[in-house]
Amino acid sequence: MLEGIVLAHPEYVARLEGFDVLIRADKKINKVALVSGGGSGHEPAHGGFVGTGMLDAAVAGSVFTSPTPDQVLEAIKAVDTGQGVLLVIKNYTGDIMNFEMAAELAEAEGIEVATVVTNDDVAVEDSLYTTGRRGVAGTVFVHKIAGARAETGASLDEVKAIAQKVIANVRTMGVALKPCTVPAVGKPGFELSEDEMELGIGIHGEPGIERKPLQTADEIVDYLMKRILNDIEFQVGDEVAAMINGAGATPPMELYILNRRVSQILAGKGIRVFKTFVGNYMTSIDMAGASITLLKLDDELKELLLAQADTVGFKMC
Amino acid sequence: MLEGIVLAHPEYVARLEGFDVLIRADKKINKVALVSGGGSGHEPAHGGFVGTGMLDAAVAGSVFTSPTPDQVLEAIKAVDTGQGVLLVIKNYTGDIMNFEMAAELAEAEGIEVATVVTNDDVAVEDSLYTTGRRGVAGTVFVHKIAGARAETGASLDEVKAIAQKVIANVRTMGVALKPCTVPAVGKPGFELSEDEMELGIGIHGEPGIERKPLQTADEIVDYLMKRILNDIEFQVGDEVAAMINGAGATPPMELYILNRRVSQILAGKGIRVFKTFVGNYMTSIDMAGASITLLKLDDELKELLLAQADTVGFKMC
Repeated sequence: MLEGIVLAHPEYVARLEGFDVLIRADKKINKVALVSGGGSGHEPAHGGFVGTGMLDAAVAGSVFTSPTPDQVLEAIKAVDTGQGVLLVIKNYTGDIMNFEMAAELAEAEGIEVATVVTNDDVAVEDSLYTTGRRGVAGTVFVHKIAGARAETGASLDEVKAIAQKVIANVRTMGVALKPCTVPAVGKPGFELSEDEMELGIGIHGEPGIERKPLQTADEIVDYLMKRILNDIEFQVGDEVAAMINGAGATPPMELYILNRRVSQILAGKGIRVFKTFVGNYMTSIDMAGASITLLKLDDELKELLLAQADTVGFKMC
Repeated sequence: MLEGIVLAHPEYVARLEGFDVLIRADKKINKVALVSGGGSGHEPAHGGFVGTGMLDAAVAGSVFTSPTPDQVLEAIKAVDTGQGVLLVIKNYTGDIMNFEMAAELAEAEGIEVATVVTNDDVAVEDSLYTTGRRGVAGTVFVHKIAGARAETGASLDEVKAIAQKVIANVRTMGVALKPCTVPAVGKPGFELSEDEMELGIGIHGEPGIERKPLQTADEIVDYLMKRILNDIEFQVGDEVAAMINGAGATPPMELYILNRRVSQILAGKGIRVFKTFVGNYMTSIDMAGASITLLKLDDELKELLLAQADTVGFKMC
């Protein structure tokens, strides 16, 4: 897969030779560098977000498996320009452990490293693979906004601060209609009958809140949005970015049908949608399903969200 | 779905009131206008390609059903600025009939209309719904390149000529691993067992060349590429644009694995890949599968391919 990405988009990404790391095709830019990654199977996350205005490197583990610390370390070393490196980690025990170990090793080599942990999934407080909430599709907004801040020449502290601000203001919840199959396993990781769905699903098929008979698109959105809106305070006039993210096997048609209801609910609460993103941003291999992400915005976040980005998976012209 | 698209992307598209037509959100531009469309279920085709550098309007029929002539006529009237309108039609009997009837009605109202018919699918000469080859994912390159030509202020004849040039040089073939379900029908349109695939599938699940036991990604690509490369002459040093298009339920991971082999085959033949596009461009609702499109390029096509485009489904920054 990594070979296929590099062959497809040599103008965007290059392989760090000998490692499962994608770096920007253009040479290093004199700024704070952003590194993210995790298990594979979530494409375009994270290699598809390497490029102008977003990440400097993405580290790819095996499917649904954290990359090892040595891989992360090499990514850090490849992109550091002496201004420091921010690691954006999704909250999974394996990722936390391996990325933090890599951070320590890099610091031992004299590289300044900061870390942030995304935890936007409102579905469950702890889960199969996490202490605390899971980091899911909202992570893409962290890449976008912290990446834009780094391009302005901000310091590592400043880039970390804006990443933390996104994390504090972003919430996600998902649903699955059909399970995903890890290739090496060869059969679905869980079972759902044709007329069932799993609400609050994780991006590796981890269980959510409840399994229910299939409902209409509007009913599903009502359920997910209620959970999300209960978790973060909104006032009339607030503005949000919305992401209707596909799990991998859900076509754009269905995502837009979900968005119709998302927009209606927000309008009903007097919340203005500043910008909407619909498509595959953080997939779960071939799972059929979707997640809804809301990011509460202020002027600073809005400006950084609209800043130029040119990556394979996220473009802001 | 159309409501969901407009609510998601009001900065790109608006609904032509009372019709299933999406037009550009910004006001009419003084140039030749491009109109396309067809049955729904192929998103982001075609509404997702409305915007700067591509289409001026897209007409959406019911799922897998041609829009009626009156809808197409209204689209033409909405976007014409007196410089004429080019209709880009995928080769399906219903689309040809309805778009051509709309063209006649528009001409009766004094609007100059030209039409082109895309027929890039090399799989079968005639099919369930066509006389001649089917128009499939290669249509997106027609939108892109003819759209770029129109933005330069070219005449209707010139825009039609470049569209014809793309059609003459673009070839596609697809494969399905799982069928799609038309919502109103509620069950899959055809049957494939877990270990079968259909080679040469159409974008509505029409039969292809043969049904075979499932093979590896490389073997599938070898088969598709052989058919495509047999159909159009290439010489060492030729350049192509490649599109690895997802059918709707196939995740980016799998498309990139296919692309690896596509790139290898082209490199082996001395054909240079100028630009590769990977993702959902012309879907078949929730079909699992993919198609490979090659567009043979010259300097004129290369320049127009890289020209700025800013639409929901296709961005060239």
